[in-house]
Amino acid sequence: MPPEIETAETAQVESARRRKTRDRLIDAAYEVFAETGVHAASVEMISERAGFTRGAFYSNFATKEELFFALAERENRIRFERLQEGVDVILPQVGEAALTERSLGELVTRFLELQSDDRRWCIVQSEFKLLAMRNAQVAASYVAYQRNFLEQLTEQIDAAVGSVGLRFTIEPIEAIGIIVNLYESAMQAAILEGDDGDSVSAPPLARAALPALVHALTEPIS
Amino acid sequence: MPPEIETAETAQVESARRRKTRDRLIDAAYEVFAETGVHAASVEMISERAGFTRGAFYSNFATKEELFFALAERENRIRFERLQEGVDVILPQVGEAALTERSLGELVTRFLELQSDDRRWCIVQSEFKLLAMRNAQVAASYVAYQRNFLEQLTEQIDAAVGSVGLRFTIEPIEAIGIIVNLYESAMQAAILEGDDGDSVSAPPLARAALPALVHALTEPIS
Repeated sequence: MPPEIETAETAQVESARRRKTRDRLIDAAYEVFAETGVHAASVEMISERAGFTRGAFYSNFATKEELFFALAERENRIRFERLQEGVDVILPQVGEAALTERSLGELVTRFLELQSDDRRWCIVQSEFKLLAMRNAQVAASYVAYQRNFLEQLTEQIDAAVGSVGLRFTIEPIEAIGIIVNLYESAMQAAILEGDDGDSVSAPPLARAALPALVHALTEPIS
Repeated sequence: MPPEIETAETAQVESARRRKTRDRLIDAAYEVFAETGVHAASVEMISERAGFTRGAFYSNFATKEELFFALAERENRIRFERLQEGVDVILPQVGEAALTERSLGELVTRFLELQSDDRRWCIVQSEFKLLAMRNAQVAASYVAYQRNFLEQLTEQIDAAVGSVGLRFTIEPIEAIGIIVNLYESAMQAAILEGDDGDSVSAPPLARAALPALVHALTEPIS
Protein backbone atom coordinates (compact mmCIF):
# COMPACT_ATOMS: atom_id res chain seq x y z
CA MET A 1 0.00 0.00 0.00
CA PRO A 2 1.49 3.39 -0.93
CA PRO A 3 2.18 5.51 2.14
CA GLU A 4 -0.15 8.38 1.14
CA ILE A 5 -3.19 6.03 1.25
CA GLU A 6 -2.16 4.74 4.64
CA THR A 7 -1.93 8.36 5.81
CA ALA A 8 -5.41 9.16 4.47
CA GLU A 9 -6.82 6.12 6.29
CA THR A 10 -5.07 7.07 9.51
CA ALA A 11 -6.49 10.58 9.19
CA GLN A 12 -9.96 9.14 8.69
CA VAL A 13 -9.68 6.94 11.76
CA GLU A 14 -8.31 9.90 13.70
CA SER A 15 -11.18 12.13 12.59
CA ALA A 16 -13.80 9.51 13.49
CA ARG A 17 -12.24 9.10 16.94
CA ARG A 18 -12.22 12.87 17.39
CA ARG A 19 -15.89 13.10 16.42
CA LYS A 20 -16.70 10.38 18.92
CA THR A 21 -14.84 12.22 21.70
CA ARG A 22 -16.67 15.44 20.86
CA ASP A 23 -20.03 13.66 20.86
CA ARG A 24 -19.33 12.08 24.24
CA LEU A 25 -18.36 15.46 25.67
CA ILE A 26 -21.54 17.03 24.27
CA ASP A 27 -23.69 14.23 25.75
CA ALA A 28 -21.98 14.59 29.13
CA ALA A 29 -22.37 18.38 29.08
CA TYR A 30 -26.09 18.11 28.36
CA GLU A 31 -26.51 15.78 31.36
CA VAL A 32 -24.44 17.94 33.71
CA PHE A 33 -26.13 21.17 32.53
CA ALA A 34 -29.55 19.64 33.14
CA GLU A 35 -28.64 18.21 36.55
CA THR A 36 -26.63 20.99 38.20
CA GLY A 37 -27.61 24.03 36.13
CA VAL A 38 -25.56 25.62 33.37
CA HIS A 39 -24.05 28.17 35.75
CA ALA A 40 -22.72 25.64 38.25
CA ALA A 41 -21.50 23.15 35.62
CA SER A 42 -17.70 23.09 35.31
CA VAL A 43 -15.26 21.76 32.71
CA GLU A 44 -14.06 19.29 35.37
CA MET A 45 -17.55 17.93 35.96
CA ILE A 46 -18.22 17.55 32.24
CA SER A 47 -14.86 15.87 31.50
CA GLU A 48 -15.29 13.47 34.39
CA ARG A 49 -18.83 12.56 33.33
CA ALA A 50 -17.57 11.81 29.82
CA GLY A 51 -14.68 9.73 31.23
CA PHE A 52 -11.99 12.04 29.86
CA THR A 53 -9.29 14.26 31.30
CA ARG A 54 -9.54 18.05 31.22
CA GLY A 55 -6.81 17.89 28.57
CA ALA A 56 -9.14 15.96 26.26
CA PHE A 57 -11.80 18.58 26.88
CA TYR A 58 -9.51 21.47 26.00
CA SER A 59 -8.21 19.81 22.86
CA ASN A 60 -11.83 19.86 21.62
CA PHE A 61 -13.42 22.97 23.11
CA ALA A 62 -11.88 26.20 24.35
CA THR A 63 -14.59 26.82 26.98
CA LYS A 64 -17.80 25.48 28.49
CA GLU A 65 -19.61 28.13 26.42
CA GLU A 66 -18.13 26.84 23.16
CA LEU A 67 -19.36 23.37 24.10
CA PHE A 68 -22.84 24.77 24.74
CA PHE A 69 -22.99 26.15 21.19
CA ALA A 70 -21.95 22.74 19.78
CA LEU A 71 -24.76 21.16 21.82
CA ALA A 72 -27.23 23.81 20.63
CA GLU A 73 -26.27 23.21 17.01
CA ARG A 74 -26.94 19.50 17.41
CA GLU A 75 -30.26 20.02 19.23
CA ASN A 76 -31.49 22.58 16.70
CA ARG A 77 -30.52 20.37 13.76
CA ILE A 78 -32.73 17.61 15.18
CA ARG A 79 -35.62 20.08 15.47
CA PHE A 80 -35.17 21.45 11.95
CA GLU A 81 -35.21 17.91 10.58
CA ARG A 82 -38.35 17.05 12.52
CA LEU A 83 -40.04 20.20 11.22
CA GLN A 84 -39.01 19.37 7.66
CA GLU A 85 -40.51 15.90 8.01
CA GLY A 86 -43.76 17.64 8.97
CA VAL A 87 -43.55 19.89 5.93
CA ASP A 88 -42.89 16.93 3.64
CA VAL A 89 -45.61 14.68 5.08
CA ILE A 90 -48.39 17.03 6.23
CA LEU A 91 -48.43 19.84 3.67
CA PRO A 92 -48.96 17.70 0.54
CA GLN A 93 -52.22 16.55 2.17
CA VAL A 94 -53.56 20.12 2.21
CA GLY A 95 -56.08 20.55 -0.62
CA GLU A 96 -56.42 23.38 -3.09
CA ALA A 97 -59.23 25.08 -1.15
CA ALA A 98 -58.34 28.18 0.89
CA LEU A 99 -57.59 27.43 4.54
CA THR A 100 -60.23 28.47 7.03
CA GLU A 101 -59.34 29.51 10.58
CA ARG A 102 -60.35 26.01 11.64
CA SER A 103 -58.38 24.07 9.03
CA LEU A 104 -55.32 26.28 9.65
CA GLY A 105 -55.68 25.57 13.38
CA GLU A 106 -55.78 21.84 12.73
CA LEU A 107 -52.67 22.14 10.57
CA VAL A 108 -50.72 23.98 13.29
CA THR A 109 -51.88 21.39 15.83
CA ARG A 110 -50.59 18.55 13.65
CA PHE A 111 -47.19 20.24 13.52
CA LEU A 112 -47.17 20.71 17.29
CA GLU A 113 -47.96 17.01 17.77
CA LEU A 114 -44.72 16.22 15.95
CA GLN A 115 -42.66 17.98 18.62
CA SER A 116 -41.29 15.71 21.28
CA ASP A 117 -40.78 16.73 24.86
CA ASP A 118 -38.43 19.70 25.05
CA ARG A 119 -38.39 20.54 28.73
CA ARG A 120 -34.79 19.56 29.45
CA TRP A 121 -33.62 21.58 26.47
CA CYS A 122 -35.88 24.48 27.48
CA ILE A 123 -34.28 24.74 30.94
CA VAL A 124 -30.70 24.40 29.68
CA GLN A 125 -31.21 26.95 26.91
CA SER A 126 -32.97 29.44 29.21
CA GLU A 127 -30.16 29.16 31.76
CA PHE A 128 -27.50 29.68 29.13
CA LYS A 129 -29.30 32.78 27.82
CA LEU A 130 -29.25 34.27 31.33
CA LEU A 131 -25.57 33.45 31.71
CA ALA A 132 -25.02 35.32 28.41
CA MET A 133 -27.03 38.29 29.70
CA ARG A 134 -24.45 38.68 32.47
CA ASN A 135 -21.34 38.26 30.27
CA ALA A 136 -20.79 40.61 27.32
CA GLN A 137 -18.42 38.25 25.50
CA VAL A 138 -20.77 35.27 25.69
CA ALA A 139 -23.65 37.61 24.81
CA ALA A 140 -22.08 38.51 21.45
CA SER A 141 -21.79 34.81 20.51
CA TYR A 142 -25.31 34.17 21.76
CA VAL A 143 -26.79 36.96 19.63
CA ALA A 144 -25.07 35.56 16.52
CA TYR A 145 -26.27 32.03 17.32
CA GLN A 146 -29.85 33.16 17.99
CA ARG A 147 -29.97 35.27 14.81
CA ASN A 148 -28.71 32.33 12.75
CA PHE A 149 -31.27 29.98 14.31
CA LEU A 150 -34.12 32.42 13.64
CA GLU A 151 -33.05 33.03 10.03
CA GLN A 152 -32.93 29.30 9.29
CA LEU A 153 -36.28 28.72 10.94
CA THR A 154 -37.86 31.67 9.12
CA GLU A 155 -36.67 30.40 5.75
CA GLN A 156 -38.17 26.98 6.46
CA ILE A 157 -41.50 28.19 7.86
CA ASP A 158 -41.98 31.06 5.40
CA ALA A 159 -41.71 28.58 2.51
CA ALA A 160 -44.16 26.21 4.21
CA VAL A 161 -46.65 29.03 4.84
CA GLY A 162 -46.37 30.14 1.20
CA SER A 163 -46.97 26.59 -0.04
CA VAL A 164 -50.44 26.57 1.57
CA GLY A 165 -51.38 29.92 0.03
CA LEU A 166 -50.65 32.16 3.03
CA ARG A 167 -48.17 34.87 3.93
CA PHE A 168 -47.25 36.67 7.15
CA THR A 169 -48.85 40.08 7.71
CA ILE A 170 -45.70 41.36 9.48
CA GLU A 171 -42.01 40.80 8.71
CA PRO A 172 -41.64 36.97 8.57
CA ILE A 173 -38.64 36.94 10.93
CA GLU A 174 -40.56 39.03 13.48
CA ALA A 175 -43.57 36.72 13.21
CA ILE A 176 -41.36 33.65 13.72
CA GLY A 177 -39.66 35.36 16.67
CA ILE A 178 -43.07 35.93 18.30
CA ILE A 179 -44.14 32.33 17.61
CA VAL A 180 -40.88 30.93 19.08
CA ASN A 181 -41.34 33.14 22.17
CA LEU A 182 -44.84 31.81 22.70
CA TYR A 183 -43.65 28.23 22.31
CA GLU A 184 -40.78 28.69 24.79
CA SER A 185 -42.96 30.47 27.28
CA ALA A 186 -45.62 27.73 27.01
CA MET A 187 -42.89 25.18 27.68
CA GLN A 188 -41.70 27.13 30.74
CA ALA A 189 -45.31 27.31 31.98
CA ALA A 190 -45.67 23.53 31.60
CA ILE A 191 -42.49 23.02 33.66
CA LEU A 192 -43.63 25.50 36.35
CA GLU A 193 -47.02 23.84 36.57
CA GLY A 194 -45.33 20.51 37.21
CA ASP A 195 -47.09 19.06 34.20
CA ASP A 196 -45.05 15.91 33.65
CA GLY A 197 -46.16 15.84 30.04
CA ASP A 198 -45.73 12.91 27.77
CA SER A 199 -42.76 12.45 25.56
CA VAL A 200 -44.58 13.19 22.34
CA SER A 201 -46.51 16.41 22.76
CA ALA A 202 -46.13 20.17 22.79
CA PRO A 203 -47.10 22.04 25.99
CA PRO A 204 -50.86 22.64 26.53
CA LEU A 205 -50.60 26.45 26.39
CA ALA A 206 -48.97 26.27 22.96
CA ARG A 207 -51.63 23.87 21.72
CA ALA A 208 -54.29 26.36 22.86
CA ALA A 209 -52.81 29.69 21.76
CA LEU A 210 -50.49 28.95 18.83
CA PRO A 211 -53.15 28.17 16.20
CA ALA A 212 -54.94 31.46 17.04
CA LEU A 213 -51.65 33.39 16.91
CA VAL A 214 -50.66 31.92 13.53
CA HIS A 215 -54.13 32.79 12.20
CA ALA A 216 -53.77 36.37 13.50
CA LEU A 217 -50.33 36.79 11.88
CA THR A 218 -51.14 35.40 8.42
CA GLU A 219 -53.43 36.25 5.49
CA PRO A 220 -54.28 34.55 2.17
CA ILE A 221 -52.01 35.49 -0.73
CA SER A 222 -54.36 37.59 -2.83
CA MET B 1 -54.53 59.56 78.07
CA PRO B 2 -56.48 56.31 78.40
CA PRO B 3 -54.19 53.32 77.99
CA GLU B 4 -56.01 51.90 74.93
CA ILE B 5 -55.13 55.06 72.89
CA GLU B 6 -51.53 54.88 73.94
CA THR B 7 -51.52 51.26 72.82
CA ALA B 8 -52.98 52.21 69.42
CA GLU B 9 -50.27 54.86 68.95
CA THR B 10 -47.55 52.45 69.95
CA ALA B 11 -48.93 49.92 67.49
CA GLN B 12 -48.89 52.57 64.75
CA VAL B 13 -45.25 53.48 65.44
CA GLU B 14 -44.41 49.80 65.57
CA SER B 15 -46.14 49.16 62.26
CA ALA B 16 -44.38 52.11 60.55
CA ARG B 17 -40.99 50.86 61.81
CA ARG B 18 -41.81 47.38 60.58
CA ARG B 19 -42.74 48.71 57.13
CA LYS B 20 -39.46 50.61 56.99
CA THR B 21 -37.49 47.49 57.88
CA ARG B 22 -39.31 45.50 55.20
CA ASP B 23 -38.67 48.24 52.61
CA ARG B 24 -34.96 48.31 53.44
CA LEU B 25 -34.75 44.54 53.13
CA ILE B 26 -36.55 44.67 49.78
CA ASP B 27 -34.20 47.40 48.50
CA ALA B 28 -31.15 45.43 49.65
CA ALA B 29 -32.45 42.22 48.08
CA TYR B 30 -32.98 43.95 44.74
CA GLU B 31 -29.37 45.19 44.79
CA VAL B 32 -27.91 41.83 45.81
CA PHE B 33 -30.08 39.91 43.31
CA ALA B 34 -28.94 42.23 40.51
CA GLU B 35 -25.25 42.09 41.49
CA THR B 36 -24.67 38.44 42.34
CA GLY B 37 -27.61 36.74 40.64
CA VAL B 38 -30.77 35.49 42.33
CA HIS B 39 -29.40 31.98 42.70
CA ALA B 40 -26.21 32.98 44.52
CA ALA B 41 -27.88 35.63 46.73
CA SER B 42 -28.20 34.50 50.36
CA VAL B 43 -30.24 35.68 53.33
CA GLU B 44 -26.92 36.62 54.99
CA MET B 45 -25.88 38.83 52.07
CA ILE B 46 -29.25 40.56 51.94
CA SER B 47 -29.44 41.17 55.71
CA GLU B 48 -25.91 42.51 55.79
CA ARG B 49 -26.56 44.85 52.84
CA ALA B 50 -29.64 46.20 54.63
CA GLY B 51 -27.67 46.62 57.87
CA PHE B 52 -29.76 44.11 59.80
CA THR B 53 -29.16 40.76 61.48
CA ARG B 54 -30.48 37.53 60.05
CA GLY B 55 -32.95 37.59 62.95
CA ALA B 56 -34.47 40.83 61.59
CA PHE B 57 -34.74 39.17 58.17
CA TYR B 58 -36.54 36.12 59.50
CA SER B 59 -38.97 38.17 61.57
CA ASN B 60 -40.11 39.74 58.27
CA PHE B 61 -39.73 37.03 55.63
CA ALA B 62 -39.65 33.25 55.91
CA THR B 63 -37.35 32.79 52.91
CA LYS B 64 -35.44 34.57 50.16
CA GLU B 65 -38.23 33.50 47.83
CA GLU B 66 -40.90 35.18 49.95
CA LEU B 67 -38.84 38.37 49.81
CA PHE B 68 -38.67 38.10 46.02
CA PHE B 69 -42.47 38.05 45.80
CA ALA B 70 -42.68 41.18 48.00
CA LEU B 71 -40.18 42.88 45.66
CA ALA B 72 -42.16 41.73 42.61
CA GLU B 73 -45.37 43.09 44.07
CA ARG B 74 -43.75 46.49 44.57
CA GLU B 75 -42.17 46.54 41.10
CA ASN B 76 -45.39 45.48 39.38
CA ARG B 77 -47.44 48.07 41.28
CA ILE B 78 -45.12 50.81 39.94
CA ARG B 79 -45.64 49.50 36.39
CA PHE B 80 -49.43 49.24 36.74
CA GLU B 81 -49.55 52.86 37.96
CA ARG B 82 -47.37 54.04 35.07
CA LEU B 83 -49.63 52.22 32.61
CA GLN B 84 -52.74 53.75 34.20
CA GLU B 85 -51.21 57.23 33.85
CA GLY B 86 -50.84 56.46 30.14
CA VAL B 87 -54.46 55.36 29.92
CA ASP B 88 -55.64 58.51 31.71
CA VAL B 89 -53.49 60.95 29.71
CA ILE B 90 -53.16 59.43 26.23
CA LEU B 91 -56.49 57.74 25.57
CA PRO B 92 -58.73 60.83 26.08
CA GLN B 93 -56.78 62.41 23.18
CA VAL B 94 -57.90 59.67 20.79
CA GLY B 95 -60.67 61.06 18.54
CA GLU B 96 -63.95 59.43 17.57
CA ALA B 97 -62.64 58.25 14.20
CA ALA B 98 -61.77 54.54 13.83
CA LEU B 99 -58.08 53.81 14.43
CA THR B 100 -56.05 52.97 11.34
CA GLU B 101 -53.07 50.61 11.50
CA ARG B 102 -50.89 53.71 11.57
CA SER B 103 -52.71 55.61 14.31
CA LEU B 104 -52.91 52.44 16.42
CA GLY B 105 -49.16 52.01 15.93
CA GLU B 106 -48.52 55.55 17.11
CA LEU B 107 -50.71 54.93 20.14
CA VAL B 108 -48.78 51.77 21.14
CA THR B 109 -45.52 53.65 20.62
CA ARG B 110 -46.64 56.44 22.96
CA PHE B 111 -47.38 53.84 25.63
CA LEU B 112 -43.97 52.22 25.12
CA GLU B 113 -42.28 55.60 25.52
CA LEU B 114 -43.77 55.82 29.00
CA GLN B 115 -41.88 52.72 30.12
CA SER B 116 -38.63 53.42 31.87
CA ASP B 117 -35.60 51.20 31.65
CA ASP B 118 -36.45 47.73 32.92
CA ARG B 119 -33.26 45.78 32.31
CA ARG B 120 -32.32 45.23 35.95
CA TRP B 121 -35.81 43.97 36.71
CA CYS B 122 -35.79 41.85 33.56
CA ILE B 123 -32.64 39.98 34.64
CA VAL B 124 -33.76 39.48 38.25
CA GLN B 125 -37.23 38.28 37.23
CA SER B 126 -35.87 35.92 34.54
CA GLU B 127 -33.40 34.42 37.04
CA PHE B 128 -36.11 33.89 39.62
CA LYS B 129 -38.34 32.19 37.06
CA LEU B 130 -35.54 29.73 36.29
CA LEU B 131 -34.96 29.10 39.98
CA ALA B 132 -38.70 28.31 40.23
CA MET B 133 -38.44 25.94 37.26
CA ARG B 134 -36.00 23.83 39.29
CA ASN B 135 -37.97 23.87 42.56
CA ALA B 136 -41.54 22.54 42.63
CA GLN B 137 -42.51 24.42 45.80
CA VAL B 138 -41.30 27.80 44.51
CA ALA B 139 -42.87 26.97 41.14
CA ALA B 140 -46.35 26.71 42.67
CA SER B 141 -46.02 30.18 44.21
CA TYR B 142 -44.58 31.54 40.98
CA VAL B 143 -47.49 30.24 38.90
CA ALA B 144 -49.99 31.90 41.28
CA TYR B 145 -48.03 35.17 41.21
CA GLN B 146 -47.73 35.16 37.41
CA ARG B 147 -51.42 34.35 36.93
CA ASN B 148 -52.41 37.19 39.25
CA PHE B 149 -50.10 39.62 37.44
CA LEU B 150 -51.51 38.62 34.05
CA GLU B 151 -55.13 38.88 35.23
CA GLN B 152 -54.60 42.39 36.60
CA LEU B 153 -52.80 43.50 33.45
CA THR B 154 -55.47 41.99 31.22
CA GLU B 155 -58.24 43.81 33.08
CA GLN B 156 -56.42 47.11 32.68
CA ILE B 157 -55.45 46.70 29.02
CA ASP B 158 -58.71 45.09 27.90
CA ALA B 159 -60.62 48.12 29.25
CA ALA B 160 -58.18 50.50 27.51
CA VAL B 161 -58.50 48.63 24.20
CA GLY B 162 -62.30 48.72 24.47
CA SER B 163 -62.30 52.47 25.15
CA VAL B 164 -60.72 53.12 21.73
CA GLY B 165 -63.28 50.96 19.93
CA LEU B 166 -61.20 47.77 19.61
CA ARG B 167 -61.30 44.24 20.99
CA PHE B 168 -58.87 41.32 20.97
CA THR B 169 -59.45 38.65 18.32
CA ILE B 170 -58.25 35.89 20.69
CA GLU B 171 -58.84 35.40 24.43
CA PRO B 172 -57.70 38.72 26.01
CA ILE B 173 -55.51 37.00 28.63
CA GLU B 174 -53.78 34.97 25.89
CA ALA B 175 -53.23 38.11 23.82
CA ILE B 176 -51.75 39.94 26.83
CA GLY B 177 -49.56 36.92 27.60
CA ILE B 178 -48.17 37.02 24.05
CA ILE B 179 -47.60 40.80 24.25
CA VAL B 180 -45.81 40.48 27.61
CA ASN B 181 -43.62 37.69 26.16
CA LEU B 182 -42.62 39.87 23.23
CA TYR B 183 -41.81 42.77 25.54
CA GLU B 184 -39.67 40.61 27.85
CA SER B 185 -37.89 38.97 24.98
CA ALA B 186 -37.18 42.37 23.38
CA MET B 187 -35.74 43.51 26.70
CA GLN B 188 -33.53 40.41 26.90
CA ALA B 189 -32.36 41.05 23.32
CA ALA B 190 -31.44 44.64 24.22
CA ILE B 191 -29.39 43.37 27.17
CA LEU B 192 -27.68 40.69 25.05
CA GLU B 193 -26.86 43.24 22.35
CA GLY B 194 -25.17 45.42 24.96
CA ASP B 195 -27.51 48.24 24.04
CA ASP B 196 -26.98 50.53 27.01
CA GLY B 197 -30.34 52.12 26.33
CA ASP B 198 -31.49 55.31 27.91
CA SER B 199 -33.46 55.41 31.09
CA VAL B 200 -36.73 56.41 29.46
CA SER B 201 -37.41 54.06 26.60
CA ALA B 202 -38.64 50.60 25.73
CA PRO B 203 -36.24 48.25 23.91
CA PRO B 204 -35.86 48.79 20.11
CA LEU B 205 -37.27 45.38 19.16
CA ALA B 206 -40.47 46.09 21.11
CA ARG B 207 -40.80 49.50 19.47
CA ALA B 208 -40.51 47.80 16.06
CA ALA B 209 -42.68 44.70 16.50
CA LEU B 210 -45.23 45.52 19.21
CA PRO B 211 -47.42 47.94 17.20
CA ALA B 212 -47.70 45.35 14.40
CA LEU B 213 -48.51 42.59 16.90
CA VAL B 214 -51.23 44.65 18.62
CA HIS B 215 -52.72 45.45 15.22
CA ALA B 216 -52.69 41.75 14.29
CA LEU B 217 -54.39 40.74 17.56
CA THR B 218 -57.20 43.34 17.58
CA GLU B 219 -60.22 44.29 15.45
CA PRO B 220 -62.75 47.13 15.52
CA ILE B 221 -65.83 46.46 17.65
CA SER B 222 -68.49 46.04 14.99
